[in-house]
Amino acid sequence: MAISDAHLLRGRILSFRRRPDGPDDTKAFRYIEDGAVLMASGSIIALGSFNEVLADAPESVPVTDHRPHLITAGFIDPHIHFPQAQVIASWADQLLDWLNDYTFPAEIRFADKAHGERIAKGFFDALIGHGTTTAVAYCSSHPNSVDAYFEEAGRRGMRMIGGKTMMDRGAPEALCDTAQSSYDESKALLEKWRGRGRALYAITPRFAITSTPAQLEAAGALLSEHPDCHLQTHLSENPNEIAYTKELYPDAPDYLGVYESYGLLGPKSLFGHCIHLEPREKTRMAETGSVAVFCPTSNLFLGSGLFDKAGLEGQGIRTAIATDVGGGTNYSLLRTLDEGFKILQLQRQRLHPLETFYWATLGNAEALSLSDKIGNLEPGSEADVIVLNARATQAMALRMETVETLAEELFVLQTLGDDRAVAETYVAGNAQKGSGR
Amino acid sequence: MAISDAHLLRGRILSFRRRPDGPDDTKAFRYIEDGAVLMASGSIIALGSFNEVLADAPESVPVTDHRPHLITAGFIDPHIHFPQAQVIASWADQLLDWLNDYTFPAEIRFADKAHGERIAKGFFDALIGHGTTTAVAYCSSHPNSVDAYFEEAGRRGMRMIGGKTMMDRGAPEALCDTAQSSYDESKALLEKWRGRGRALYAITPRFAITSTPAQLEAAGALLSEHPDCHLQTHLSENPNEIAYTKELYPDAPDYLGVYESYGLLGPKSLFGHCIHLEPREKTRMAETGSVAVFCPTSNLFLGSGLFDKAGLEGQGIRTAIATDVGGGTNYSLLRTLDEGFKILQLQRQRLHPLETFYWATLGNAEALSLSDKIGNLEPGSEADVIVLNARATQAMALRMETVETLAEELFVLQTLGDDRAVAETYVAGNAQKGSGR
Repeated sequence: MAISDAHLLRGRILSFRRRPDGPDDTKAFRYIEDGAVLMASGSIIALGSFNEVLADAPESVPVTDHRPHLITAGFIDPHIHFPQAQVIASWADQLLDWLNDYTFPAEIRFADKAHGERIAKGFFDALIGHGTTTAVAYCSSHPNSVDAYFEEAGRRGMRMIGGKTMMDRGAPEALCDTAQSSYDESKALLEKWRGRGRALYAITPRFAITSTPAQLEAAGALLSEHPDCHLQTHLSENPNEIAYTKELYPDAPDYLGVYESYGLLGPKSLFGHCIHLEPREKTRMAETGSVAVFCPTSNLFLGSGLFDKAGLEGQGIRTAIATDVGGGTNYSLLRTLDEGFKILQLQRQRLHPLETFYWATLGNAEALSLSDKIGNLEPGSEADVIVLNARATQAMALRMETVETLAEELFVLQTLGDDRAVAETYVAGNAQKGSGR
Repeated sequence: MAISDAHLLRGRILSFRRRPDGPDDTKAFRYIEDGAVLMASGSIIALGSFNEVLADAPESVPVTDHRPHLITAGFIDPHIHFPQAQVIASWADQLLDWLNDYTFPAEIRFADKAHGERIAKGFFDALIGHGTTTAVAYCSSHPNSVDAYFEEAGRRGMRMIGGKTMMDRGAPEALCDTAQSSYDESKALLEKWRGRGRALYAITPRFAITSTPAQLEAAGALLSEHPDCHLQTHLSENPNEIAYTKELYPDAPDYLGVYESYGLLGPKSLFGHCIHLEPREKTRMAETGSVAVFCPTSNLFLGSGLFDKAGLEGQGIRTAIATDVGGGTNYSLLRTLDEGFKILQLQRQRLHPLETFYWATLGNAEALSLSDKIGNLEPGSEADVIVLNARATQAMALRMETVETLAEELFVLQTLGDDRAVAETYVAGNAQKGSGR
């Protein structure tokens, strides 16, 4: 083999094959104590024990030794708001007040391309710093913001998904488009960006409250014309939101029924929150393969309620877990897993750390129908890799003295870890934080 | 004035006078944009504008300029477990399993004085690193652990409260004392430690499940003989715990009634958790001035339930907020305030950041009946001071660009901050993290 940009990472390797079926399901993942990942041309070429991978690697391949840290796939964040980097941690009441008081004013500023470009730098720095290598973001309703988002993603070589927020009512005029302009602009943007580098496009009606029936119809038309695109929106987050949606769409059988009637359900459709679903909605989510996206820090911060993971998955609904910055309070999937664990604890649903780490990596990749590309370290996957240090802080190091198993270590990372625990983030094989190469 | 160890801190000053009665109650605190605190001999000598304080200060007093950071009183943590520094982030189910599987085995190791001394160093480093200058800790049942705790506190000059855990049943033999030995040992320890330097003693029966009636009677005797001591125990954390307590004490009217019948209620009595209180219990808590201690990260982590702050305070019950490490998941009062805010949001109790910062400082001091000594920066108070940096991380700095008010800044600190936001911790006037002097 002679690939000029090959690079070998040595360390303890964790890569999931599928969802662990309980704590003893060791076949669901690979764990290699002295392991290696060989990357080249943006992809993973080999994975295995250090000696084996080195033996098959190009001669004098550069080796970065990350021992004793843990090497795993980059985190995936399937629900985040790019224009809310400066909204995070605003003193909010519930959802609708929070939108009007903080979020809409902040999003208006993204009409200015230069503002979007500047915030994009900080936003992507935050993702990388927290070990997130793929995210699915709402941009603002301004095409400028979508361009700023994908230009920055392209500069960093990241597999990012995003789209222009479609909203033609219920928001300040400066944020509103029309059904027709939202169709035209979204179409132009998706044709411009999807497939350019690693970019993918998500058709993005914010939620039923800020879209007229005509706009949701336009979103449905876009989706049927571009089945390679994702669709993202919000569903059943807050009781007031649900009640208002039913007022606006009195003929719909329920909240999901609004989206359903415009053809927005399906295996590439991502529905943020899904906290207060009615039985019919659950049935249709499952039947259509639609994805329920759990946003723990946001759901607690806005007092939205408790996501019923076991109940939803028990009915066959696909799930993902996400930060929802800026309703969410942290860019870190580790912090998100911790608060997700806590929300489930309140409902007597006890989540094992092997399952949570699966969820934040391969699980989220499966929810995005991208597990052939991202979410694990198998050869052929794209080389989005993170290096986790479970002794990153003094409190963690003190705790780690008594840790004996991988599962315990993962739980320390989840419970005590934050961006400091992300020692390195590789995007398409390139170190972003500085320790590699 | 000529005090040889005088030291002046310059920065933005926040010091509470009393609990803010809503966000507009600006008389509840002092906020000085270009302010100063003058410290000497372990106490605060003056507080005011920089120019005024400097004019009255000793000539050539050393000045540490902490601008643009915020200077406030050190955090107070009224419920924490010293022997659980290596239990934090253990994959727990509910309370009683967590005790048996993780906590008791860890506590057994504190029979060894050297182990306690070693962990004490890490534990106190964690407190200082997170800006906590006073804590009320459960030590293990071994007098050795109490000595290790107070010796380390003494070396650092900290006002710390703690006590030997009394437990004579329901735990491994290596942790159990007897009613008589727990009385004798507690008495010897409190006579040794209370008032030595800044140490205060808390009589510490763990909870009703691990104490026989005879031991609770001994605790009550100790408390009545030593009314200068605090009392700390656990109350109404978990449904299984409550049910088992009622089995063990079938004649008690309720859980609190157990403690009540042994004289353990009163204004210096700290009851951890108080989540599922019955009406009679609330009435007696209020009537006796007993304190309900809210432990948000612990209550979520163990799925214990939601603390009803408004309900308890509405009935006149005194409250405090604490980390409860290692059932709690973070030493940081900032992280604790964030999760506390979230628990209250779930109950539609919306807490203003001025109130949360009051709670973690002067509020907790009042709950400990120590507001004449700690919890604010008024002249005469002990010089336990922290310096907070709301731009400590990249995500915080990005958010802070749009922050205009003190309340917004506090909310950013609470929501996004952690130990990195604690730029300096002064204990009795002495810088502990290295930036001062």
